[in-house]
Amino acid sequence: MTQIETVETLKRRMAETKALKGATDVLGWDQQTYMPTGGGGARADQITALSKVIHQMATGRETENLLEAAERDSKDLDPDSDDAAYLRVARRDFNRAAKMPEELVARMARITTLGYEAWHEARAASDYGKFAPWLEQILGLSREVAELRGYKESIYDALLDEYEPGMKASDVQSMFQAIKPDLVGLVKAVAALGPNAIDDSVLKRDFDEGRQEAFGKTVVSALGFDWTRGRQDRAVHPFCTSFTRGDVRITTRFEPNFLPAALFGSMHETGHALYEQGVGTRFDGNVLGGGTSLGVHESQSRLWENLVGRSKPFWQAFYPDLQQAFPEQLGSVAPADWYRAINKVEPSLIRVEADEVTYNLHILLRFEMEVALLEGKVSVGDAPALWNAKTEEYLGLTPPDDAQGILQDVHWSGGGIGYFPTYSVGNLLSVQLFEAANEALGGEVSAQIARKEFGPLHDWLQENIYQYGRKYDPRALVQRVTGRPLDPAPYLRYLQAKFGDVYGLSGKG
Amino acid sequence: MTQIETVETLKRRMAETKALKGATDVLGWDQQTYMPTGGGGARADQITALSKVIHQMATGRETENLLEAAERDSKDLDPDSDDAAYLRVARRDFNRAAKMPEELVARMARITTLGYEAWHEARAASDYGKFAPWLEQILGLSREVAELRGYKESIYDALLDEYEPGMKASDVQSMFQAIKPDLVGLVKAVAALGPNAIDDSVLKRDFDEGRQEAFGKTVVSALGFDWTRGRQDRAVHPFCTSFTRGDVRITTRFEPNFLPAALFGSMHETGHALYEQGVGTRFDGNVLGGGTSLGVHESQSRLWENLVGRSKPFWQAFYPDLQQAFPEQLGSVAPADWYRAINKVEPSLIRVEADEVTYNLHILLRFEMEVALLEGKVSVGDAPALWNAKTEEYLGLTPPDDAQGILQDVHWSGGGIGYFPTYSVGNLLSVQLFEAANEALGGEVSAQIARKEFGPLHDWLQENIYQYGRKYDPRALVQRVTGRPLDPAPYLRYLQAKFGDVYGLSGKG
Repeated sequence: MTQIETVETLKRRMAETKALKGATDVLGWDQQTYMPTGGGGARADQITALSKVIHQMATGRETENLLEAAERDSKDLDPDSDDAAYLRVARRDFNRAAKMPEELVARMARITTLGYEAWHEARAASDYGKFAPWLEQILGLSREVAELRGYKESIYDALLDEYEPGMKASDVQSMFQAIKPDLVGLVKAVAALGPNAIDDSVLKRDFDEGRQEAFGKTVVSALGFDWTRGRQDRAVHPFCTSFTRGDVRITTRFEPNFLPAALFGSMHETGHALYEQGVGTRFDGNVLGGGTSLGVHESQSRLWENLVGRSKPFWQAFYPDLQQAFPEQLGSVAPADWYRAINKVEPSLIRVEADEVTYNLHILLRFEMEVALLEGKVSVGDAPALWNAKTEEYLGLTPPDDAQGILQDVHWSGGGIGYFPTYSVGNLLSVQLFEAANEALGGEVSAQIARKEFGPLHDWLQENIYQYGRKYDPRALVQRVTGRPLDPAPYLRYLQAKFGDVYGLSGKG
Repeated sequence: MTQIETVETLKRRMAETKALKGATDVLGWDQQTYMPTGGGGARADQITALSKVIHQMATGRETENLLEAAERDSKDLDPDSDDAAYLRVARRDFNRAAKMPEELVARMARITTLGYEAWHEARAASDYGKFAPWLEQILGLSREVAELRGYKESIYDALLDEYEPGMKASDVQSMFQAIKPDLVGLVKAVAALGPNAIDDSVLKRDFDEGRQEAFGKTVVSALGFDWTRGRQDRAVHPFCTSFTRGDVRITTRFEPNFLPAALFGSMHETGHALYEQGVGTRFDGNVLGGGTSLGVHESQSRLWENLVGRSKPFWQAFYPDLQQAFPEQLGSVAPADWYRAINKVEPSLIRVEADEVTYNLHILLRFEMEVALLEGKVSVGDAPALWNAKTEEYLGLTPPDDAQGILQDVHWSGGGIGYFPTYSVGNLLSVQLFEAANEALGGEVSAQIARKEFGPLHDWLQENIYQYGRKYDPRALVQRVTGRPLDPAPYLRYLQAKFGDVYGLSGKG
């Protein structure tokens, strides 16, 4: 066969595996949105059976032979070509999967599917005891997986690498060392102004859910979400999932007495969705479809949520619409007060509702918890106490119950240990990428946002990031787009400038 | 291995296949309820990939060896035992599947998935031309399948047998010959009374969708639907699907100006759901799970929709509640007028909204259309004209467009050719089974319904039908439960008595 033929044969084979992964993701979406509780057992059977089949197909002799043949026939490929990238990524996926025995893959699928159901129940009842045995099993499985994958420095590296290829626990530590002093400094400077420097009670009024939903959809549409290729539903934990660029789904959680939850949550998930909807059509059914890493993914959710959604020009454009949607609640609230309210810095218990300054402290806490749990430095039974102690240390608060503490996040229940640091990577990267976009667009992005013109920013991101899917690994992509590696400096400059302004700290920054 | 070990090994293997079928059904449900249009292509890829894997697993050497070993070790089994039934059904499923080449299975999955999308669009636009090429392909595939399966009398038999094991086209013809004179006689007797013998305009008032939904849920709950093991959503074509007895989903279509659509549609789908939710837990993940045939399934949907839902005692119990839900629309409508309105006999265009007398004429039409199309006696291009001519012949009406004619039903788009006769089987059987239940319950069922006591009827059906799943084939089940084979007499007696009463025809019946 020619080079093109062997690569195409491999692609057809792997497209079937990808289709089965898409099917698995549909089952996961359904589990988190609509599945009745009675469906949990069979859902675990379904996802487990699919995982086994996918693993067999992805690691079987037929795939390996096709991959080897394609590699052999493609030695002369331009390394920057799509096909060369395809083979690199296919090889990486193959090698990672081939290390796992089928039995472990099946066990992981079953336990994380049932673990999600257990977490869901435990969180609703704020009963950590209901989730603890599952966490124990999930940690055990994660250790097994990490040992099979192998690592040089920390067991954590083997798990983190799945979400952020090439990143290590020591990189995460360096990242936090670089940003922690500024974060702590800002939190202290704000705290020194007293608890009433900003009044955010306007966010906690009575906001009709239907109106929240309608306004949210207007914003999601304005940002560029394509409703013919996606939808929005409700879920306990907001998320975005993509079965193909033609079917990208976001979920939202509405809180009647806290407007930001659904509002900024929707913008956040829209950011993820724009990335997935924007992957080039040439990668349909291809391993290069989808986002290149969770950190880059999160950079997009945070960019649209914070750099756009919590910005002054955005509310210059949208605040009159919001007031119209909620005349009783916001009719007499001045635009400047609204802007300050949504940007209030205040240590809080729930990560997904945290402000931009304290957010990374929530991640630091989770990162340290995960390392301690994985390395056995804390037992599953003692984990809530450690969680609460760290919450006290970093945020000065004590969770009144586990639902607002260790049970608040879905990730561990689904096996996502090593996932959290990508949130902080995303925070840093969101500013670095936004700056690059703004520079390329002649510094006009703020003015465009103030005119509800999201097209230029969206187009630039589409052109420089989204369309490439997984073609460039995260480090190559960031270098390519911004001319340098991941850099905390833009992020810290942004925080100092923004919150210096919000709190009138300009002299102290 | 012992007999028990070989059967258990086979069961474990086949449980995985069943789980993958369940996964496929989740994808189908999603396609018909929530999937955005952009997801259609990938959904076809997903369902096609799953179908191939399921086919490989179901017909592969491993399954065949396990099946043979289990059969060999089980010669002394009591033929009425669950395991003996398991082996009979597993063998029948295996033999049927093994005749199909994988390539055909994959092609069928792809074309019927895309065919559904095309039908959906064609129906919305009332544009038969958009669906015709798909129907052509689906007919071709159905002929291929039928030839591979084999048949003695008619090509139709090979397709019908999948839905109603053991039934033939000639049986369908005999069935229609037995009932057609009475149906035509009743239609004529009613027509002789003039078009205004019953005024059903009360059904066509303005009924708020939210209230329709709320009242419908009350009824669905009262009938015994278990919401922890199921849910209700909206879909273009109402259906019931079951992924396991723990996750049974029904769908409804609301029409703001025609109350019966959602009301009786919900009761109909609830009947299907009660059957699926009632299968014995011992058949979880087992080939004996699910209904034994579509005819028996339809007997349950029609029993709950008609024998219960369109009965006098039912509305004795529920009409006050319905009036309370719609005081403006129904407050001044007398119970007797309501009962007559919902039982008005009037030839109409839409099968799912047809009255009990004319309903089977819709089925006869479809059965004859399918035979003609399959045998090539009518071309796909000429099919709408034949549909309209038959509608004129049997119902005295001409569809104003194809959406109300040949495009109204989903079945063909999904490959369901040979499915329609099971609706008439279900109609006949619904009365035969209801009579058996009523006799066993001391003739008290009507009185119980009038007191909103559905438990005794539900329990009897559960005990005698639902719990057995596919253990008994339809003919064995009917014989076992009623002491005789499928018999049109109870059905005809029921129609004569009921509509004689509704229309005051008692002397003429």
